[in-house]
Amino acid sequence: MSEIIQRASGRPATESDIELFRHLEANLYTAVVADSLDELGHRNQAMREYLRPVAPRCVFAGWARTMSWTDVYHIPPDPYALEIEAMDSLLPGEVMVVAAGNSKRNAPWGELMSTAARTRGARGAVIDGLVRDVRKIEELGFPVFASGIKPVDSKGRGMVIDYNLPVDCGGVLVAPGDLVFADYDGVVVIPAAAVDEAVRMATAKVTRENHTREELLQGAFLRDVYARYGVL
Amino acid sequence: MSEIIQRASGRPATESDIELFRHLEANLYTAVVADSLDELGHRNQAMREYLRPVAPRCVFAGWARTMSWTDVYHIPPDPYALEIEAMDSLLPGEVMVVAAGNSKRNAPWGELMSTAARTRGARGAVIDGLVRDVRKIEELGFPVFASGIKPVDSKGRGMVIDYNLPVDCGGVLVAPGDLVFADYDGVVVIPAAAVDEAVRMATAKVTRENHTREELLQGAFLRDVYARYGVL
Amino acid sequence: MSEIIQRASGRPATESDIELFRHLEANLYTAVVADSLDELGHRNQAMREYLRPVAPRCVFAGWARTMSWTDVYHIPPDPYALEIEAMDSLLPGEVMVVAAGNSKRNAPWGELMSTAARTRGARGAVIDGLVRDVRKIEELGFPVFASGIKPVDSKGRGMVIDYNLPVDCGGVLVAPGDLVFADYDGVVVIPAAAVDEAVRMATAKVTRENHTREELLQGAFLRDVYARYGVL
Amino acid sequence: MSEIIQRASGRPATESDIELFRHLEANLYTAVVADSLDELGHRNQAMREYLRPVAPRCVFAGWARTMSWTDVYHIPPDPYALEIEAMDSLLPGEVMVVAAGNSKRNAPWGELMSTAARTRGARGAVIDGLVRDVRKIEELGFPVFASGIKPVDSKGRGMVIDYNLPVDCGGVLVAPGDLVFADYDGVVVIPAAAVDEAVRMATAKVTRENHTREELLQGAFLRDVYARYGVL
Amino acid sequence: MSEIIQRASGRPATESDIELFRHLEANLYTAVVADSLDELGHRNQAMREYLRPVAPRCVFAGWARTMSWTDVYHIPPDPYALEIEAMDSLLPGEVMVVAAGNSKRNAPWGELMSTAARTRGARGAVIDGLVRDVRKIEELGFPVFASGIKPVDSKGRGMVIDYNLPVDCGGVLVAPGDLVFADYDGVVVIPAAAVDEAVRMATAKVTRENHTREELLQGAFLRDVYARYGVL
Amino acid sequence: MSEIIQRASGRPATESDIELFRHLEANLYTAVVADSLDELGHRNQAMREYLRPVAPRCVFAGWARTMSWTDVYHIPPDPYALEIEAMDSLLPGEVMVVAAGNSKRNAPWGELMSTAARTRGARGAVIDGLVRDVRKIEELGFPVFASGIKPVDSKGRGMVIDYNLPVDCGGVLVAPGDLVFADYDGVVVIPAAAVDEAVRMATAKVTRENHTREELLQGAFLRDVYARYGVL
Repeated sequence: MSEIIQRASGRPATESDIELFRHLEANLYTAVVADSLDELGHRNQAMREYLRPVAPRCVFAGWARTMSWTDVYHIPPDPYALEIEAMDSLLPGEVMVVAAGNSKRNAPWGELMSTAARTRGARGAVIDGLVRDVRKIEELGFPVFASGIKPVDSKGRGMVIDYNLPVDCGGVLVAPGDLVFADYDGVVVIPAAAVDEAVRMATAKVTRENHTREELLQGAFLRDVYARYGVL
Repeated sequence: MSEIIQRASGRPATESDIELFRHLEANLYTAVVADSLDELGHRNQAMREYLRPVAPRCVFAGWARTMSWTDVYHIPPDPYALEIEAMDSLLPGEVMVVAAGNSKRNAPWGELMSTAARTRGARGAVIDGLVRDVRKIEELGFPVFASGIKPVDSKGRGMVIDYNLPVDCGGVLVAPGDLVFADYDGVVVIPAAAVDEAVRMATAKVTRENHTREELLQGAFLRDVYARYGVL
Repeated sequence: MSEIIQRASGRPATESDIELFRHLEANLYTAVVADSLDELGHRNQAMREYLRPVAPRCVFAGWARTMSWTDVYHIPPDPYALEIEAMDSLLPGEVMVVAAGNSKRNAPWGELMSTAARTRGARGAVIDGLVRDVRKIEELGFPVFASGIKPVDSKGRGMVIDYNLPVDCGGVLVAPGDLVFADYDGVVVIPAAAVDEAVRMATAKVTRENHTREELLQGAFLRDVYARYGVL
Repeated sequence: MSEIIQRASGRPATESDIELFRHLEANLYTAVVADSLDELGHRNQAMREYLRPVAPRCVFAGWARTMSWTDVYHIPPDPYALEIEAMDSLLPGEVMVVAAGNSKRNAPWGELMSTAARTRGARGAVIDGLVRDVRKIEELGFPVFASGIKPVDSKGRGMVIDYNLPVDCGGVLVAPGDLVFADYDGVVVIPAAAVDEAVRMATAKVTRENHTREELLQGAFLRDVYARYGVL
Repeated sequence: MSEIIQRASGRPATESDIELFRHLEANLYTAVVADSLDELGHRNQAMREYLRPVAPRCVFAGWARTMSWTDVYHIPPDPYALEIEAMDSLLPGEVMVVAAGNSKRNAPWGELMSTAARTRGARGAVIDGLVRDVRKIEELGFPVFASGIKPVDSKGRGMVIDYNLPVDCGGVLVAPGDLVFADYDGVVVIPAAAVDEAVRMATAKVTRENHTREELLQGAFLRDVYARYGVL
Repeated sequence: MSEIIQRASGRPATESDIELFRHLEANLYTAVVADSLDELGHRNQAMREYLRPVAPRCVFAGWARTMSWTDVYHIPPDPYALEIEAMDSLLPGEVMVVAAGNSKRNAPWGELMSTAARTRGARGAVIDGLVRDVRKIEELGFPVFASGIKPVDSKGRGMVIDYNLPVDCGGVLVAPGDLVFADYDGVVVIPAAAVDEAVRMATAKVTRENHTREELLQGAFLRDVYARYGVL
């Protein structure tokens, strides 16, 4: 069981956090980060393939803020209370991770949630469930991953039961304060304690891949370039 | 069990029907209509998330005309007879709803069906099954939702068993004459008797959402705007 | 059980092979080829709907070269050996068919594999499994079909167990030397012995479909044009 | 949305309740009750086929008491608090309906829960999820339906989030106070308001079925006995 | 596409048919028959694993009589007409094969159908769908395979659309007049034209298996007995 | 990645091994062992619920010997070679763990395999796939868990690719030499290094559960006995 890391719930992203996010977004990609996490022994950090970006612009990195949903079959007295509280507590530099267990009943995320998240300074959202208002989210330019699209509200269908606790999202255990990094290939989660090492290794691996690609383009056989650079 | 409503099978769309369709297509969206149907107690009117548009242009509204398919494992004597009859009976202002039970065996819809439907005046089609000729459907500009793409004909794989009767499409019971409304978020079905009320409520809700969005963009917290406008 | 056809593993594509591939790519489409195969009694030659192109440019034809993967749960001594051997043996005019049983564990294909395949003269790849580096594959312009996207390497997750043998890919039995033809509607496999006949029939059917489309566009009813041309 | 019926949470079963339960258990069966509910317009009252009895003795009837579970991925401070409260509130004549969304993560029910339920006077339990200690439950003679068997505790895997509210169990909406009736064919839920009518109709239908069976056994054709008794 | 074989619909089983059925039921088993069919090139004749006997007594053989169902979402004018016609046309020595596409909506088979089938002389039934009245079917002693149990009638849920035509049941194409053979391991379908050869080969293979088993029981290693008898 | 532990492949079970197996089989059960493993931080050691015993007698414990299968679509030159080698290498006190990825294509286990395994001294088998000859396996008295039953041979459908390496079976990573323990509730895998501690803790917990059960049977409320013994 993961311990809850308090960083994300404690302070907005610093300038060096932002610099880190931008390095990931501009120079790295999820595949090379996943390989580095593999080498560090973190072998289940890439979310399932069913989580896809809902619009073309989809590269972002930030600290995980989590929210946990359950399906309901009645309308609770104050159905949005915890959801609003969780959204309003978002801090600059965070990524909202919505654990809805890939439920197909409702859409716990939409345009107004995206707007609220961006206003609070969030850098993106990952929804293990459905979303709606997709065209408007696209116009807003807020990057969202989700497992599908359906135009229904959550009232009487789903409810937030807690936030800021470890959750499962797309098959990966995410703790508040982990680093979430997403691009067109998917979403990887870097455990808070492994961030520095994983980013350093990934940055180095990018160079070796560039050599491999270049030699392959010049006609080399795979066995020779693999023998030389050890990447595939 | 839904009663069969005869409107759709009786007459082509009137001018006021067309005006209604255009109001939906231009000013409303499926999410807000789904919310209004929820409030009216119709809580299962949005089709499943696996039904997606096969091309970017995908907004349409019209009266439902239904067609029911079953899988077959032999070639019947006159395999296309009922299918042709159903297609030729389409009237201006209708949407063809193809209930194929999300079968993955064949593609009951393609370019020629789209062409025939458009020639009869249909405004779109929803296929709870596979389609083919997708690039040509896109060129034609006829909007189609489907659960997938596969290049195989229906002969010896599927067969129309009836048309113009209540069917299940994407998890929603659709009766002939219901109003089918689709946009990028998905497909909602407005029961014939609820059309006026649902459209009126949805039109009003759009205004409140605009206020909410505006205030969020200006930095407001979700709890405050929700307290003011009651929409999320 | 299919016999292994040796053509593909024996020699690079000839000029007349290339002419054939270009005729398919420019003048035919998978739907009409699937119909011709149906008429010839080959009724299960279109791959399942879950195999989709990962980038817009996705039309290609070529001889099948196959590679068979299995899931693993440890890191074998020389994890990439057979994979590299299979890749380096690719010949001009071939399509790599990667049979990974639609495993969701790893991505047996990515940018470097695409680069290596293109350098050897391959015309495309079909992966019954996941891929990564999708944006870079798109930039490279190498056409790939896959069942999903996930940014993880195969080491310790999957392994090549053999190549150049009959495999199941997307529900179709593919033998080395079969003709693989893909466009936006999906992937069809023409058994080596049926290539000439299937291509001849498909070429003829395209003409009849053009007549049907034209008359439908001019307002004809489906029953009349079907009576005339017998295509739907 | 179902209203919460308060009967079950208010008082233990009366003698006439017990008489009703025994009439159902001894003289009726779920199939004939499901048919009566169909005729009364309640067409979705039989739970999904994946809920099966875990031991041969499996006939019971009683008022529904509900409990709602969610998956968790951490160990909450007091993981069993609500679960214990819900169990200790069970009243004589009730059936515990455990809504765990058919989760395959943990077993929210076992021998000690069965023992506690029987001690409180419960007549059975329906678990939309997994159970454990099955051999001991069988020895105890407490009848349980479940969707599977796995020997793991709920701590850190699942948690009760509420009880005595409407839930979905096996695809049926169950409100506290509905009548749950189970036999080898499955589980049906009789809405509180329909109990008298449904039981009366089912009792009458049993007689007609007896005539049908008898005549069929004597060699009659189905069309003749169906014409006579109207049951199939 | 299979041709419809007319034997089953033409005449009741002869004495030599009955003798054949009894030889299969008493001396052979589905596993050895499946192996013989494999050797004859019929490699997809064993139904899917989800078809299980609903009661312990489950060995039977007979000529296939088929019936095809579809899901419906309304109550047709005469919902049972074709079903009754199909049932009453059953002949002695037949096995009713109910192709309901593994639908989970309704139970197209139950006690009265079992009684009617046995009265007509049927030897068993295979339902690719759900059944009800299972305890009574067990008492009746009529052997039934099904994919699950649920206590709901077919009216308004499913409907017979044809009978005596080739169908898919549990993943196997069954033509009327094929030989259906079931035991605890499952159901195999012997194509009408392969019956004599398959039964002859299976009878011979049983002997070799007996030798293998005997020597293994005496402590032999698998490689030695396999070298001797060639069966595993 | 688990290291391969060599104990199982090195020597037959000692007398103290046998004593340990018998203690587990006679005094403990999988549920209490799974709880102990949870407390030791091994939280994913119980196999998935779809693995069920194929016959009533199903309690066994022994060292894991593993075998890994893949699906094939052709008949390899020597299809049974590795399979026979793996079977003949079984040592007294081992449990054969057959990792076939829950494939539904073939039955990699049957009566002759059970006979061979028992002859070598194996105590049971767990098949993450299908089995056949189930009635004969039952008569033999050799305990087998499997995910289903189907009467087809593996030749041309599946093939052993390796043995004695870490595998996934029913969602649990099993290394050769781990302790496999099965009863009616399912199968748990005790990592070789945790055997002593897990067995000691489980033995102690059984006593506390007995107190809890006793007091519940005497009418106590759950909150009181849980407060006293801390088990549920």
